Amino acid sequence: MVHLFNAGPAKVPDEVKEQIQSEFFNFAGSGISVIEISHRSPEFTALMNESNVNLREILEIPDNYRILWLAGGATGLFSSIPLNLITSKDDVLDYVVTGTWSKGAAKEAEKYANVNYVVPIPADFTGVPLEESMKFTPGAKYVFYCDNETVNGIEFPHILKTDSTIVCDMSSNFLSRAVDVQKYGAIFAGVQKNVAPAGLGVLIIREDLISADRLHQVPKVWDFKLQDAANSCLNTPNVFSLYVTNLVLKHLMKNGGLKRYSELSRQKSSAIYDIIDDSNGFYACKIDKDARSRMNVTFKLASKDLEAEFVKKAADLKIEGVKGHRSVGGIRASLYNAVTMESVNYLGDFMKSFQKNHE
Amino acid sequence: MVHLFNAGPAKVPDEVKEQIQSEFFNFAGSGISVIEISHRSPEFTALMNESNVNLREILEIPDNYRILWLAGGATGLFSSIPLNLITSKDDVLDYVVTGTWSKGAAKEAEKYANVNYVVPIPADFTGVPLEESMKFTPGAKYVFYCDNETVNGIEFPHILKTDSTIVCDMSSNFLSRAVDVQKYGAIFAGVQKNVAPAGLGVLIIREDLISADRLHQVPKVWDFKLQDAANSCLNTPNVFSLYVTNLVLKHLMKNGGLKRYSELSRQKSSAIYDIIDDSNGFYACKIDKDARSRMNVTFKLASKDLEAEFVKKAADLKIEGVKGHRSVGGIRASLYNAVTMESVNYLGDFMKSFQKNHE
Repeated sequence: MVHLFNAGPAKVPDEVKEQIQSEFFNFAGSGISVIEISHRSPEFTALMNESNVNLREILEIPDNYRILWLAGGATGLFSSIPLNLITSKDDVLDYVVTGTWSKGAAKEAEKYANVNYVVPIPADFTGVPLEESMKFTPGAKYVFYCDNETVNGIEFPHILKTDSTIVCDMSSNFLSRAVDVQKYGAIFAGVQKNVAPAGLGVLIIREDLISADRLHQVPKVWDFKLQDAANSCLNTPNVFSLYVTNLVLKHLMKNGGLKRYSELSRQKSSAIYDIIDDSNGFYACKIDKDARSRMNVTFKLASKDLEAEFVKKAADLKIEGVKGHRSVGGIRASLYNAVTMESVNYLGDFMKSFQKNHE
Repeated sequence: MVHLFNAGPAKVPDEVKEQIQSEFFNFAGSGISVIEISHRSPEFTALMNESNVNLREILEIPDNYRILWLAGGATGLFSSIPLNLITSKDDVLDYVVTGTWSKGAAKEAEKYANVNYVVPIPADFTGVPLEESMKFTPGAKYVFYCDNETVNGIEFPHILKTDSTIVCDMSSNFLSRAVDVQKYGAIFAGVQKNVAPAGLGVLIIREDLISADRLHQVPKVWDFKLQDAANSCLNTPNVFSLYVTNLVLKHLMKNGGLKRYSELSRQKSSAIYDIIDDSNGFYACKIDKDARSRMNVTFKLASKDLEAEFVKKAADLKIEGVKGHRSVGGIRASLYNAVTMESVNYLGDFMKSFQKNHE
């Protein structure tokens, strides 16, 4: 058995994979594989509706919010959001940059509007900015931030405090804790980190933000108004990813919902952070304690050679996916919902034993 | 056993589905499911490279053409192509409209440039325009057409005759016959009709057309230059669809390649068209004989009621997916590569028996 700590695409619950495999030739009693069903079939329409109902229930999404499922993932949504929300050439967009992803989103938005960086982009990402340091633009079209930065392992401890409309990228901590949706204008996520296979993004957006009044031309597949009217089926959707997403939503509800997974995320990440903090510096996490991600635990060892040995020895024990992002190096263990406490303890035991053998 | 004639998403070869199912927990010996592997893993890189090699071999793609795999499908590519190819506000794009898809592509291109309709859009689509009726723009940036129109069942019998750079949508007849790639500037397809599950598009483009010199801002995920440099992994690609695509490519090569499938397509479609033509008007196909699609055979019966009964009786016999597109009604049988001669004969026998019982 492989203990998988991939940052995304990432682990899917074994029970869900077993169901996919067992019903692969027969989706919803149709006698047809889920990869062959038409997106205009009653079976698919039922799947789409059920996914919306389930997501609405899990996240307690208010009635005045719409759910869109769009091909691609967060990087595409980085472009589609300003394209849909900008209504005037004078619009200012506020971006809070705390890592690779929010920085990428801001650069993409700069193609279409004036972007104000609420805090200067730091040379190195180690936490979330102090509230008093943030300079929001009065009347900004929206404030954008990334709730969890996967590369560096930085997570906001709470929602950003601002009076502006918030647009939040939750790709890597989506469905890992309860969210007060009504405090956001829009929440989006690529599903491939904490939910399902790559190639699908989900957008939860307050309905008054969906409008045909836009400054720029919006490509049809990203037109929120058209996609909303078409129940996310203006073009052929990613049927398979939506199917797995819905299975994961049901799995999550059956196993205690967000309350349970939120508690599990805390326990799993604490287990690893405790080992780091008790290691006398053998393992070092440079992220501020209040901004340490529950999803992506990042740390370094004394040298690149030692890190390479850590990754190799881990692989020998079937611990996979712990190499840090290529842009920052080090080690990263991603502890998404599907990663079990058993796997986390297995990793923890390895970390302790590896330290013992190298001190 | 269901005989599936879906227009897309559509049938995938049984042998391929069996392989997906059997190795679902263990991709390429990794001990990890294909839906969990990282797009930065050696296993995925090997898959991407193999897919490119296989597609290049099957279509005999010259070295000066690049292959891009992009999230979404043809409708997204309708936008990305003008966005990437337009370099000046004076650029004119020529569009040949022969059905729903080319019309949609032209409307999308109008967002970004001057579109010239090479022939007036007909009120009803029944064939491909006569060569002498087409008014190409000298110096047009490109001429766009759709090789096979899925909704109406119209297929070009041969490549469009023009001196301009050709951009061709082959979504629904991709890999159904040999193509002289060097005669095109670009060929693209959503994979969900003749290849693999929805959520992935493929673009084959002459390398000199890939440039950073563009008039409009190009969303990062659709930036051909960046995606080409990143081997289609600028953002997380649709791993699962690419995996199935590659299995289908291998299946196709093993079973005789394009020569064999081209011949099969001719045989399968002829079998159904012959029944239509021999029906004394009981079944009526209004498409010009030289433009009848080998992929999507469309026909009508005397009344909507009779068509509804046809669909119902077919379903009783496990013939699925034969209802015509909602915009045009009637009957449509899609005969993509994965549809066997056995299924086609089964449908043919039903058509003959249905006619006998209703005359």
